[in-house]
Amino acid sequence: MREEGAAPLVAPEGETPIVVLVRPQLPENIGTTARAMANGGLFHLRLVAPREGWPKERAWAAASGADRILDAATVHASVDDAIADCHRVLATCPRPRHVIMPVMTARAAATELRSLRERNLRTALLFGPERAGLEAEDLARADTLVRYPLNPEFSSLNLAQAVMVLAYEWWVAADGTPPVRLQTHKTEVATRGSLENFMGHLVAELDACGFLRNEAKRPGMVRNLRHWFTRGEVTEQELRTLHGVVAELSRGRMRHGRPEPEAPRTPDDD
Amino acid sequence: MREEGAAPLVAPEGETPIVVLVRPQLPENIGTTARAMANGGLFHLRLVAPREGWPKERAWAAASGADRILDAATVHASVDDAIADCHRVLATCPRPRHVIMPVMTARAAATELRSLRERNLRTALLFGPERAGLEAEDLARADTLVRYPLNPEFSSLNLAQAVMVLAYEWWVAADGTPPVRLQTHKTEVATRGSLENFMGHLVAELDACGFLRNEAKRPGMVRNLRHWFTRGEVTEQELRTLHGVVAELSRGRMRHGRPEPEAPRTPDDD
Repeated sequence: MREEGAAPLVAPEGETPIVVLVRPQLPENIGTTARAMANGGLFHLRLVAPREGWPKERAWAAASGADRILDAATVHASVDDAIADCHRVLATCPRPRHVIMPVMTARAAATELRSLRERNLRTALLFGPERAGLEAEDLARADTLVRYPLNPEFSSLNLAQAVMVLAYEWWVAADGTPPVRLQTHKTEVATRGSLENFMGHLVAELDACGFLRNEAKRPGMVRNLRHWFTRGEVTEQELRTLHGVVAELSRGRMRHGRPEPEAPRTPDDD
Repeated sequence: MREEGAAPLVAPEGETPIVVLVRPQLPENIGTTARAMANGGLFHLRLVAPREGWPKERAWAAASGADRILDAATVHASVDDAIADCHRVLATCPRPRHVIMPVMTARAAATELRSLRERNLRTALLFGPERAGLEAEDLARADTLVRYPLNPEFSSLNLAQAVMVLAYEWWVAADGTPPVRLQTHKTEVATRGSLENFMGHLVAELDACGFLRNEAKRPGMVRNLRHWFTRGEVTEQELRTLHGVVAELSRGRMRHGRPEPEAPRTPDDD
């Protein structure tokens, strides 16, 4: 049932957490779960007593190409059977449950899962059926409860959304993307020399056109412009464009013989 | 169109990020987006040129009770119109785009959004249409690009999933839940005195039944048991149960007159 050209979705070497859907109701939700797993780099899916049986074409239709995960999914009669070869079992449960057990946030769980992977231990993540969630007997099979957190005033969480959040945290826990960076395309962040060169060009043209004619205010005005042009990183390509803008503005009107419009008044222009 | 008994979903005081869906295609996805917003504590929804018009009953049907968000959603002809009163605009884009602009992870964006809220600045989060994502002209309206990160081998992200991840990060950025804790119910974590009391009971019974008869191995065996019983936190209630287990095991068979089964051999039993 795999689409041509779909992403290969091959699990990396070593253990990655197994998603166990306990008594899932709708095949569509199994499909969207597979998609969310693929988004977050999870590949192993086990189904405990899916209500409508398995396989179901509607799951593949909802998976947006995460077919290989569904192709490889296994069906189990009980939670015990689904987790028998796992070393650690985490259960997700958005609702408050009156059980005595360790509770982790999704983020802490992801860190723990990565650490278990380092130790080559096999882990399972239990997700309950859409409406009711995991039963007390299911929870008693898990060693740890995962609560995300999310808005307690509105905790109705779609199954695939629940999987998505944990898959996302799993992915991020091993990701080294810098939190903030300037994305450049075919150019580089400008050096301060290039920026100063542009400032020189701009100020020279502003002197020439009379914008900086107030000698007393001139240093402050130049400083203010400098603050603006250094607020964020600028690229060499953007500086070249700005050089062009200044050059064209300063001579364009004359060259094309267009009438000069009424100059806008600026706060410094009195 | 609001269900009776639905959560009130009233936005808290102050600014919370506005979700802007740009040219969304399916009303169902607008509904599931509202649900994901509610999960993560986002309340303000704006729609730019929804393909099928607005309002659409199918959105409410998919919102699982997040009706108030849909009831209050506004429709706009353009991105410029939808963000005119906003101070900062972040655009989500899972696909690589060849633009020069700052890129943040979802986590960094959430921190930034919380910080902007502190400064009482209004923020918008742009999400593109389901298939194509935001166009270059849309991106040029944003000051920051948000890339989550997620598995680059499978970046087909459902619209509501995309909203979910950012809403989740927004919620977590202001959440103080301890990463790991033992959830107790009508009981407390046991003191070391209570634990020692139980160990005394256990060891006395093990002495009485002969399990610790090898004097040379006895100290090590007791230490090993102690390591096991102190591995995780235990509650006073669990200790009471364990006291009962030890007491009943040590006298139960005799009292009920049942035959003693063949004793299992242990590594220490030679």
